[in-house]
Amino acid sequence: MSPVPKLFSGFAVEKPEKWQEPKLVQYEPRELWPTDITIKVIACGVCGSDCHQVSGNWGPFNRENLIVGHEIIGEVIEVGSEVTKHKIGDIVGIGAQSDSCGECERCKSGNEQYCQNGSVLTYNSVHPKADGYVTQGGYASHIRVNAHFAVAVPKKLSIHNAAPLLCGGLTAYSPIVRYAGHDLTGKTIGIIGVGGIGAMALQIANALGAKDVYAFSRSSAKKEDSFKLGATKFIATGEESNWSESHKDTFDLILHCANTGKGANFNPFLDTLKLTGTFVTISAPPVDEVISFSPWSLLFSGAKVAGSIIGSMKEAEELLELYADKGLTVWIEKIPVSEEGVKEVLTRAHKGDVKYRFVLTDFDKVFT
Amino acid sequence: MSPVPKLFSGFAVEKPEKWQEPKLVQYEPRELWPTDITIKVIACGVCGSDCHQVSGNWGPFNRENLIVGHEIIGEVIEVGSEVTKHKIGDIVGIGAQSDSCGECERCKSGNEQYCQNGSVLTYNSVHPKADGYVTQGGYASHIRVNAHFAVAVPKKLSIHNAAPLLCGGLTAYSPIVRYAGHDLTGKTIGIIGVGGIGAMALQIANALGAKDVYAFSRSSAKKEDSFKLGATKFIATGEESNWSESHKDTFDLILHCANTGKGANFNPFLDTLKLTGTFVTISAPPVDEVISFSPWSLLFSGAKVAGSIIGSMKEAEELLELYADKGLTVWIEKIPVSEEGVKEVLTRAHKGDVKYRFVLTDFDKVFT
Ligand SMILES: NC(=O)c1ccc[n+]([C@@H]2O[C@H](COP(=O)([O-])OP(=O)(O)OC[C@H]3O[C@@H](n4cnc5c(N)ncnc54)[C@H](OP(=O)(O)O)[C@@H]3O)[C@@H](O)[C@H]2O)c1
Ligand SMILES: NC(=O)c1ccc[n+]([C@@H]2O[C@H](COP(=O)([O-])OP(=O)(O)OC[C@H]3O[C@@H](n4cnc5c(N)ncnc54)[C@H](OP(=O)(O)O)[C@@H]3O)[C@@H](O)[C@H]2O)c1
Ligand SMILES: [Zn+2]
Ligand SMILES: [Zn+2]
Ligand SMILES: [Zn+2]
Ligand SMILES: [Zn+2]
Repeated sequence: MSPVPKLFSGFAVEKPEKWQEPKLVQYEPRELWPTDITIKVIACGVCGSDCHQVSGNWGPFNRENLIVGHEIIGEVIEVGSEVTKHKIGDIVGIGAQSDSCGECERCKSGNEQYCQNGSVLTYNSVHPKADGYVTQGGYASHIRVNAHFAVAVPKKLSIHNAAPLLCGGLTAYSPIVRYAGHDLTGKTIGIIGVGGIGAMALQIANALGAKDVYAFSRSSAKKEDSFKLGATKFIATGEESNWSESHKDTFDLILHCANTGKGANFNPFLDTLKLTGTFVTISAPPVDEVISFSPWSLLFSGAKVAGSIIGSMKEAEELLELYADKGLTVWIEKIPVSEEGVKEVLTRAHKGDVKYRFVLTDFDKVFT
Repeated sequence: MSPVPKLFSGFAVEKPEKWQEPKLVQYEPRELWPTDITIKVIACGVCGSDCHQVSGNWGPFNRENLIVGHEIIGEVIEVGSEVTKHKIGDIVGIGAQSDSCGECERCKSGNEQYCQNGSVLTYNSVHPKADGYVTQGGYASHIRVNAHFAVAVPKKLSIHNAAPLLCGGLTAYSPIVRYAGHDLTGKTIGIIGVGGIGAMALQIANALGAKDVYAFSRSSAKKEDSFKLGATKFIATGEESNWSESHKDTFDLILHCANTGKGANFNPFLDTLKLTGTFVTISAPPVDEVISFSPWSLLFSGAKVAGSIIGSMKEAEELLELYADKGLTVWIEKIPVSEEGVKEVLTRAHKGDVKYRFVLTDFDKVFT
């Protein structure tokens, strides 16, 4: 059994200006509460959000030396006195949320990701119950979280390939099942942006039985990959300008998964939704960006636009089961964790130079 | 029985630049099709859309001498050979839509207002089946429309007070019942903008049994009226800036009924929706206006935003029944139709100087 160190270690960015110079640091974790578990990290995916966060797109850090990473797989090495969900030795996953109030209507109805009463993100969140403590993420030796926010990883799944499901995969899965259902037979789903999340969204929509899955990408570069991932149709929005005219009343759901919507025209997407369809954005762009629509497209289409944040823990379990059951594998590129490794994944992910998700590995070798 | 003239007469605006100089004109209506009826106009409400249209907010006219008006009550004086819905002598109402394809999924499912295949608005629409014919509205002696788009007016209703229900009332009613249901018991509804449509929305939400109906107006000027109309709470958005903080998880539906959203910040509204709630806009602002949201408000609230256009004919019937059953009366100001009368209603409605809807009357006296 691994000992629990007093100080945890991780690769931190001092402040946004220095995001390309991650450094190994130590920090004092918050104390273990009865509902908590401590995890020794085995692997951590690199989410588009990590890039936004470290590079300052979301504003300044709430602490110096911020450690990002919220697609974490690890081994439980400590459990609080009230924890029944997990036990020592379990392999679990942690996503972008690590605590919530647990008592509000939203928490109680299985919508804890929308808790407005004390939701805590896995990194850079001031924990309302921990006196100014700012959470630290998974590019680290260990992480301590509320046990509810850890999900058991099915044995059938590869630990490395499963990591990106914890944030990115869940972020795609939740709106798909919420707005289009668990059985997509006969439905048509559109996915905008074939990045880390978009690639998983194509897999998920296909695995849930969609009649058609459209990949919308800026150019044709990812066409072949999109088909391999599960798309049945591909539209390069930067190359085809009139696609919407031949696609009226087509989509049950369009999921906007791009990094930014700056300069994008979403009206054609509204115009191609079915009357019961929804355009859902999960994009979390730079803080000052807004998302705009023509009132006319909204009115005449009768379209709905929604936002969606990560997913619930129940949905996380369902998603891991889905990948296990269907033998699906997230497309990843593994990079051993280190100062150079973290620098490489952040800078390359920032440029979109990855197919389609980095996963940091070999935590054992660095954190001994 | 009234004769059907070869030429119809009406008060037209020559072009947007001259919107304050309406003139009595004659025009040739399109021929009577077997599915049509011809109506002799008795009263016509003055919708905010009439002001937008004539003043050029929606761009140039599709014809010279445009006659607006789409809250029309009149007597059926001619029926096409296939019409069974109405007969000569019936008192019927016509709203903002006067034809649709009748054959698409949307038309067949009782969502004819969203027909993308040949929807015809009551005025300024190029009728796809009538060879360039541009429709003319109800500030006129007569109007000829597809019989499906006329609704019987219950005897209990005052003809004048019922007129605004045909467009404005229906525009409020449809999204209320679509997104919050026909029984609002226990629900909280917010109405933004106490204008013609907002005033009817307050009445409707109250009549359908809402637990709370919030009126949002820019100032406190309409507070007392709002309570009389059916509001149970009132917020002057221009005077209270922090109202949203104490209203988390409050609204099942917020209906944006203002003339324009220019410069408005809708994020606080998203932040106060229930997770299952919807922000619906019916506002049809100047053509170049966009409606913008913070992606962060969308994401963290899980909010839905939707657009809604008028309503279906089934909903129009339900609405007239509701007003008849509950003994409700739209608040109107009557003005006899004439060049001066039309000028007065357009200029005063444009300034918001009306409580809360003008209805043009005395058509008999002008069109003899
Ligand atoms: N709502 C949530 O809970 C949640 C959770 C996790 C992440 N996120 C957010 O989701 C977004 C996507 O994350 P990700 O990990 O999938 O990122 P990613 O792997 O970097 O992919 C982003 C994709 O966006 C498209 N894109 C990039 N730059 C663009 C531009 N300038 N204009 C238009 N499209 C552009 C590209 O697709 P193409 O090359 O195909 O055009 C790219 O592959 C990020 O904003 C992230 O912060 C939200
Ligand atoms: N979707 C549809 O099918 C449909 C159908 C009919 C009409 N419409 C549109 O619905 C809108 C409202 O129509 P209406 O007949 O109710 O118009 P209206 O009687 O003129 O009322 C508009 C209300 O909007 C608010 N308002 C006016 N100027 C504003 C500004 N600069 N900023 C913010 N709010 C402002 C005012 O409310 P407060 O004084 O309380 O703030 C005003 O009473 C128009 O855009 C119209 O074209 C849409
Ligand atoms: Zn993430
Ligand atoms: Zn909560
Ligand atoms: Zn109208
Ligand atoms: Zn149709």
